[in-house]
Amino acid sequence: MNFKVRAATKDDCKDICRMIMELAVYEKMPDQVKISHEELERDGFCQNSFFECLIAEVPEEQKSKEGFTVVGYALYFYTYSTWKGRSVYLEDLYVTPEFRGNGIGKGLLCKVAEVGKSRQCVRLQMSVLNWNTPTRDFYAAKGAQDLTATEGWHFIRFDGQNLDNLVNEAPKS
Amino acid sequence: MNFKVRAATKDDCKDICRMIMELAVYEKMPDQVKISHEELERDGFCQNSFFECLIAEVPEEQKSKEGFTVVGYALYFYTYSTWKGRSVYLEDLYVTPEFRGNGIGKGLLCKVAEVGKSRQCVRLQMSVLNWNTPTRDFYAAKGAQDLTATEGWHFIRFDGQNLDNLVNEAPKS
Repeated sequence: MNFKVRAATKDDCKDICRMIMELAVYEKMPDQVKISHEELERDGFCQNSFFECLIAEVPEEQKSKEGFTVVGYALYFYTYSTWKGRSVYLEDLYVTPEFRGNGIGKGLLCKVAEVGKSRQCVRLQMSVLNWNTPTRDFYAAKGAQDLTATEGWHFIRFDGQNLDNLVNEAPKS
Repeated sequence: MNFKVRAATKDDCKDICRMIMELAVYEKMPDQVKISHEELERDGFCQNSFFECLIAEVPEEQKSKEGFTVVGYALYFYTYSTWKGRSVYLEDLYVTPEFRGNGIGKGLLCKVAEVGKSRQCVRLQMSVLNWNTPTRDFYAAKGAQDLTATEGWHFIRFDGQNLDNLVNEAPKS
């Protein structure tokens, strides 16, 4: 299997949007996806962009049953540890089922690590659902630590009305 | 208690560094802190900065026993959800013990929510240690969800040699 990993361009946003939906179906929460390719174009391909994205592409003659040559993506952004400094966070890593088992996921993961390292990031982090054993095993096999299991870190979120309530209570300056 | 919440400047980095260490002591991991105020200056106060920071300040006549007027901080950055879009992540929220119970923590939290909202963020997220009941209760009382408890999200990290191994296996382009 020949594949190429490259930086995404604005023109890839429709493909990325399609794969975001495929991943959400796998994660059993497809009704949660509200993003559009226009938003991805706006937020990822502007000054001070909110994310960066890598694409895995196969040659035309190996295209998918549905006719796609873009068969995987890794979407990431930079975060910061007040203990260690610059970090990179992998929000999504996805390979179309038809193309799995060819090292594409590993290629994307390693390329994100390489990009992060080139910007002096000392950590690569991500989140995985508890029941998603194949993915947890994939990361564990490469030496990742599960910090929820070992240190007890929990994820907390404000959104919707709860977030608006905070905004309304912000001190006036 | 009078206090003011304002954006941090480069000159605040020594104070931020001091409070990062105080927070790490509270979190029982002070030996984990490797950051210097020079790194904070470089990474937070440049073009495409890796984080933003708010400071809580009290008037000179209310300064701490040790003589500090900067008594709290909130350090955050922007992240991205491929389901919902722009988000803000609160890495650290800290108030010097002597000044707790005066609404400073809440003021910082709400101000971060306000800054996020002004940039069209639809989520405010953070992580909390399982044993840190006061902080978990603080967020829960304001309506935050614990996604590790409700959806089973686990935190995964590569660093050190494991991260270098990924970099070394990145596909050559």
